[in-house]
Amino acid sequence: MKDYFLLKNDTITAISSPLGIGAISIIRISGNKTLEIINKIFISKNNKIYNNKINFGIIKYKNDIIDQVIVLFFKAPNSYTGEDIIEINCHGSIYIQNKIISIIIKYGARLAINGEFTYRAYINKKISLLQAESVLDTINSNNKLEHKQAINNLINNKLYYYLNKIEKIIINLLSYIEINLDFIEVELDNNNIYKNILLIKNKLKKLINSFKINNIIKKGVYITIIGPVNSGKSTLMNRIINENKSIVSNIPGTTRDIVEGMININNFNFYFYDTAGIRNTKSKIEKIGIKKTYNSIKNTNIIFFVFDYKLLNKKEKIYKIIKNKKKIIKNKTVLFIANKIDKNNYNNLYKKYKYLKINSRKYRIIYISAKKKIGLNKIKRELKNMLPNKILLNNYLINNVRHYKELKIIYKYIKKVEIDYKNNIQLELISIDIKNSLQHLYKITGKYYTNNNILNNIFKNFCIGK
Amino acid sequence: MKDYFLLKNDTITAISSPLGIGAISIIRISGNKTLEIINKIFISKNNKIYNNKINFGIIKYKNDIIDQVIVLFFKAPNSYTGEDIIEINCHGSIYIQNKIISIIIKYGARLAINGEFTYRAYINKKISLLQAESVLDTINSNNKLEHKQAINNLINNKLYYYLNKIEKIIINLLSYIEINLDFIEVELDNNNIYKNILLIKNKLKKLINSFKINNIIKKGVYITIIGPVNSGKSTLMNRIINENKSIVSNIPGTTRDIVEGMININNFNFYFYDTAGIRNTKSKIEKIGIKKTYNSIKNTNIIFFVFDYKLLNKKEKIYKIIKNKKKIIKNKTVLFIANKIDKNNYNNLYKKYKYLKINSRKYRIIYISAKKKIGLNKIKRELKNMLPNKILLNNYLINNVRHYKELKIIYKYIKKVEIDYKNNIQLELISIDIKNSLQHLYKITGKYYTNNNILNNIFKNFCIGK
Repeated sequence: MKDYFLLKNDTITAISSPLGIGAISIIRISGNKTLEIINKIFISKNNKIYNNKINFGIIKYKNDIIDQVIVLFFKAPNSYTGEDIIEINCHGSIYIQNKIISIIIKYGARLAINGEFTYRAYINKKISLLQAESVLDTINSNNKLEHKQAINNLINNKLYYYLNKIEKIIINLLSYIEINLDFIEVELDNNNIYKNILLIKNKLKKLINSFKINNIIKKGVYITIIGPVNSGKSTLMNRIINENKSIVSNIPGTTRDIVEGMININNFNFYFYDTAGIRNTKSKIEKIGIKKTYNSIKNTNIIFFVFDYKLLNKKEKIYKIIKNKKKIIKNKTVLFIANKIDKNNYNNLYKKYKYLKINSRKYRIIYISAKKKIGLNKIKRELKNMLPNKILLNNYLINNVRHYKELKIIYKYIKKVEIDYKNNIQLELISIDIKNSLQHLYKITGKYYTNNNILNNIFKNFCIGK
Repeated sequence: MKDYFLLKNDTITAISSPLGIGAISIIRISGNKTLEIINKIFISKNNKIYNNKINFGIIKYKNDIIDQVIVLFFKAPNSYTGEDIIEINCHGSIYIQNKIISIIIKYGARLAINGEFTYRAYINKKISLLQAESVLDTINSNNKLEHKQAINNLINNKLYYYLNKIEKIIINLLSYIEINLDFIEVELDNNNIYKNILLIKNKLKKLINSFKINNIIKKGVYITIIGPVNSGKSTLMNRIINENKSIVSNIPGTTRDIVEGMININNFNFYFYDTAGIRNTKSKIEKIGIKKTYNSIKNTNIIFFVFDYKLLNKKEKIYKIIKNKKKIIKNKTVLFIANKIDKNNYNNLYKKYKYLKINSRKYRIIYISAKKKIGLNKIKRELKNMLPNKILLNNYLINNVRHYKELKIIYKYIKKVEIDYKNNIQLELISIDIKNSLQHLYKITGKYYTNNNILNNIFKNFCIGK
């Protein structure tokens, strides 16, 4: 991994379109030498290159015509990187792409490293660090909600402005306290200070919570199906998935190695894992299978507990089965699904038992027949209800682990400030914690100083050419 | 396969950059509705789209911002297709690419089929059929020579003009003869007619021969290494390939399934096949191996016949071995390579035997030691000498099977004309053959009429988006 801080301000080049053969490919150059280089290789009618216009011509190297191209010129500082940029739209032949790149390098550019164009945009203050990160999110976005977050941060710099608001409140608080440190005669408005601390805390809490929502947007909702042997777990999964097959095939990049099935509801992806039943066993192989089930459950958002509904005839039986799994179920969202209602007398039980009581919580029972496709929509409705609502989605969301971690640190400092202030701890000490929280806020926004590791971690994930 | 003749003149769209994730992707629209569609989805400062300029703005669908983009507008008829073209440079996210395409389709475009943009360029007389074919050749070009051919035909329409010259001579000949048919009193200049027939024939012959050279440029030179067991065939191959490994790795797309090794000399690719020794055997498995060797030899350009040089001590021994293989060697270029000269007394044999005589031809023996890397350059020099020379390469080359086949038909007609004219066959009949040859020339250039099958065959090989 190269170190972004050590990069020189020389002229860089890269293929910016996806790698491979296509009709058109884009080759980018950025830096001081950009015009000098393009003038050596690009030949047009009057051999001038116009800013902000489409320039037609050919790329030539010595006596060889390399390609008929379009050249776009973005003059500094009004370009993506803030430097002179040339974009060459050439034919998407591997040979031509490599050839043009190698000629550009021969004339004094070097190959850009991952995200170096965006890095320069950041260094030259064309975009904030948060926008740089959202460039990556935009390119990697796989679904509507994820894309919406990324593009909003990119174009409107939304999160940056929101964090600036928080920064302002913190700075005001800090100034207010520090004035008091310098001029002891000024009397502090305790109410006002406390109000501001809570305001900061609440805003931070909201952002931190939004990370979980965003994680669901990005990664989807994970559902593990558990239950006794022969309760119809696999049939249920297949039914739910098959019913939605047409939707699945329309979403690109959905196949993931370990996932057994996927459906999409309201633009959220739900991934299903079918499991082997969990029971006490001495078989080594079965133990491995059960261990896998436990691991799957650990990372799951929702558990489907499926059982043959005839078990409800003797309700203590179902409670006995569940009892062994109380530990698993704890702290998870669980749907209890009574399956095979087509087989026996359904009406009575349905009226009799609407809920199960476990860990002193009440769980509604969903009655279905996977085989006869009865009640599947009830399950989907439940899933839909679990999704974050629209108002929440329109708020500022944290979608980045780095931001999330920093926010948690800031939150810890502010919470300490709250407690210390309550306990009349010295203002000098409180002021230090407020300053610490600010430092971590700047780490997110990259406003005053961003250290090397942060930059390396951000930009190494970019593709070359961006 | 869709039929290009049945395609409507409606508005088409496609991703024109290589498929996948990248920094930037290009989406193209062409047709009457292009401006109408882009005006619905593209929002810029003053909401105008300027021809030949870089237009900055965002793509919006209903209330959703889809992306920040650059839009290039090429106004009809001065565009690639001759129609209004828009090229959207968007972020190379799969989601964004698919979304923008689907919005464009929603507003009245349809997905282009393979090569449809280029097909329209041809239909609207922006390029000749030959140029259309060279667009494909340009995109698919893998090495310098192949690329040079393609780009010359694309930019300068070289072959088209060359064929037009031939067409002119044929038409002159035809007019001259037909005038004679109409006005019997005109006396024919036999010398002139005959001279012209020969001129046409020679020009055609040159083109037809150039196809073989081009085939070598495109496909490379295939070398099969044969020889007795334990003569060092594999060592030789490995030595030649390893010496050139750095070259190999610089050339993209060189790995081919069945090829065992490749080197590049003067921009030509040489592919090596190592074989099992050919001998009489009763083993079923060995028979299959030998059959494979025979097949490899059938498609090979050059045979390396490798043997232990000590066999030359008793020269009848090497002739005996070769005797069994005379059939294989016939009509092939063969290098006889005496290997392992490091092992025994080399000087004497080298002076004694410089050639082998087989099928009444003289073959020079190349003395080497693959193990000690002695004489490998001699082999490479021989390979270099077998390559077509530069003068040949700068001529018009046929690189297309379709053209090659038509040219052979034209040649056949002209040859018939030559013979018939010599034998004083009726001019009416000769004139028919000349006309036939013209028809096939038009088939190549697409000048007057191109039938459906030809178009389908040409354009089906394009990628979508070109």
